[in-house]
Amino acid sequence: METVVMKFGGTSVATPEKIIGVAERAISEKEKGNRVVIVVSAMGKTTDTLQALADEITANPSKREMDMLLATGEQVTISLLAMAFKTLGHEALSFTGWQAGIETESVPRNARIEHIHTERLEQALSEGFFCVVAGFQGVDRAGNITTLGRGGSDTTAVALAAALNARKCDIYTDVDGVYTSDPRYVNGARKLEQISYDEMLELANLGAGVLHPRAVEFAKNNNVPLSVRASYSDEAGTIIQEVVTVEKNLIVRGVAFEPGIARVTVTYKKPFNGSLANIFTKLAEHHIDVDIIVQSITNDFPPSVSFSIKQDHMDEVKRVLDTYQSDIGFVSTDFEVGLSKVSIVGSGMVSNPGVAAQMFDILRRQDIPVKMVSTSEIKVSVVVPENDMHKSANALHEEYGLE
Amino acid sequence: METVVMKFGGTSVATPEKIIGVAERAISEKEKGNRVVIVVSAMGKTTDTLQALADEITANPSKREMDMLLATGEQVTISLLAMAFKTLGHEALSFTGWQAGIETESVPRNARIEHIHTERLEQALSEGFFCVVAGFQGVDRAGNITTLGRGGSDTTAVALAAALNARKCDIYTDVDGVYTSDPRYVNGARKLEQISYDEMLELANLGAGVLHPRAVEFAKNNNVPLSVRASYSDEAGTIIQEVVTVEKNLIVRGVAFEPGIARVTVTYKKPFNGSLANIFTKLAEHHIDVDIIVQSITNDFPPSVSFSIKQDHMDEVKRVLDTYQSDIGFVSTDFEVGLSKVSIVGSGMVSNPGVAAQMFDILRRQDIPVKMVSTSEIKVSVVVPENDMHKSANALHEEYGLE
Repeated sequence: METVVMKFGGTSVATPEKIIGVAERAISEKEKGNRVVIVVSAMGKTTDTLQALADEITANPSKREMDMLLATGEQVTISLLAMAFKTLGHEALSFTGWQAGIETESVPRNARIEHIHTERLEQALSEGFFCVVAGFQGVDRAGNITTLGRGGSDTTAVALAAALNARKCDIYTDVDGVYTSDPRYVNGARKLEQISYDEMLELANLGAGVLHPRAVEFAKNNNVPLSVRASYSDEAGTIIQEVVTVEKNLIVRGVAFEPGIARVTVTYKKPFNGSLANIFTKLAEHHIDVDIIVQSITNDFPPSVSFSIKQDHMDEVKRVLDTYQSDIGFVSTDFEVGLSKVSIVGSGMVSNPGVAAQMFDILRRQDIPVKMVSTSEIKVSVVVPENDMHKSANALHEEYGLE
Repeated sequence: METVVMKFGGTSVATPEKIIGVAERAISEKEKGNRVVIVVSAMGKTTDTLQALADEITANPSKREMDMLLATGEQVTISLLAMAFKTLGHEALSFTGWQAGIETESVPRNARIEHIHTERLEQALSEGFFCVVAGFQGVDRAGNITTLGRGGSDTTAVALAAALNARKCDIYTDVDGVYTSDPRYVNGARKLEQISYDEMLELANLGAGVLHPRAVEFAKNNNVPLSVRASYSDEAGTIIQEVVTVEKNLIVRGVAFEPGIARVTVTYKKPFNGSLANIFTKLAEHHIDVDIIVQSITNDFPPSVSFSIKQDHMDEVKRVLDTYQSDIGFVSTDFEVGLSKVSIVGSGMVSNPGVAAQMFDILRRQDIPVKMVSTSEIKVSVVVPENDMHKSANALHEEYGLE
């Protein structure tokens, strides 16, 4: 008997009726002859409600206690889902993160899974139970409850699929697959049948929002066949795997975009030595994700480094820079907000030089200023004004023939 | 340094503001030089909200999953309370039942505490942390979350006080102490300064509702000095301890009453042999509490046994009796609802014969029919119609000079 992991996000379990629907869906998967593990998030707006309670107590809650608080969200869902199986005549057991043996590092609010002790789940599966596991949460070695950060439930699902040697991991969500771009804003965006881990990783990192990058990375490293599909229909979704059958000979497979970006520029008096490492070490120590980094040293200007962050993190970045100004040794900082990131992704790029140049040309023809650029073997990202984000995406989607 | 355990119930932590008030109260206890453990219940109506969610899924939820669901209630409170300490400039750590080492038997919804592994709490206390512990919950040896049943948070507090060798365990609640009777319904009911464990045990068992009997029993067995006091004032409450300074030479120290009682009568064809044990064994196996048991065998009537239960349990009692009719071997059952229990309690009774007779006389003068009677060394209980409950309590309170 093979094991299948199914993951349902917050909107898919937002009400008791929807939870019963999830149970029905999992039962049909079992009736195909599979052992089934279901990973769920907190119901609908539960996390917001819990956050609001914490906000009433303090503006700056302890991270450990936020994990303690937020972990209750999935615990409610798993108990209700296990009850739903029972009422439909099936046996199920719910497991919190620690009960499912999900051991993480000791980093509250953003812990990585270090190991999964699968004995209890294996036992329950072999006895014929549906195993309902709380996503997003684990326990560190000292016995503190931790959470995995944004998209953590996806990571839980993929990590369990890897640990249990599952045949597949299906991520059920409120979209029916991975698209060439966001159909809400880009004309002609269409669903992809397949996409490679690497392409998905770039798209996930680029804020396509369907799957968390950590989950995709975990799937890639453990070769877990992943799919993204709709919780509301039986249609096939998008399969994410190592080798992709090329649909057309597309150089670019998707256009992603993400609003809410800020650019930070740090200026030094004289050429620095080691300071650059200092900045990013300090930011990393405070768990602030830095995305694009651009360094420009010319004789005409004082040396500076620019980097992009999420606008939400700006206050914390300011605080860290202020605190460590003398360590880092900079003169001034500048913050530009109201930016966005637009990216093109495709495995075909690696063998097609000039893709970036073509991209800049398309944007120039639309009079869109490019503030920062970052490239990898399979993607090119540009930072542009947030006002131009949708216009950029539409132009790129059309010009690269994704419709 | 001595340890103090403080317990706050659901109404005392119903809002973020109240939670901050609890933290302030605990801080003043620490400033007296104590190490402080705070045990809390779920906020206000949280349990009802969770129960309503379960009701939408199924009419007959798995008990294990109900424990999983309900345990989230206290987990929310402990995280918020720990945050409150931090925002007031103090260090605190929250602990779920399993993190606090509270090991219970494997009886979902009604587990008893078997052992408390205090290492983690001792460690945190010795490092100067306030320890905030989730009441009402524990973990069985297989790692399932369990809950302790009604009044479970009181039991958690007392058990922790015993395990940590605490100087005292203060139960903060929405009343300011233990009364001679319920002042809402009985004229002249007044607060007691002291009461013995045994008297409190009878009052608790009799539905006085201030403290759970299991908690009192635990305190008695471990000689934990217990007090019941108001969460909203600094006034001294009622101290519950082994030896009580007699205030007046009162034979009766309190009058308790409890509505919602049903009487079950089971009739046999011929004198039975062992059947009586069968009934109560079966009911106990289904965790149904039976209170007063009266057996009457005369030559004129078929043999029968009557017992009182909470009216809420009537459906389950009916189900159990139906299921095991042939095992138990009875002919018919009869259920009488709309009853109540009224009791007088006092250590002085043991040396004063005739207290029960006096009680019956008082009730007869009020034309109140007595349906069942039960006596112990320090209490007499009668089952009377629910309509006569308050009238009975007032008459007894007055006649025994408790005003």
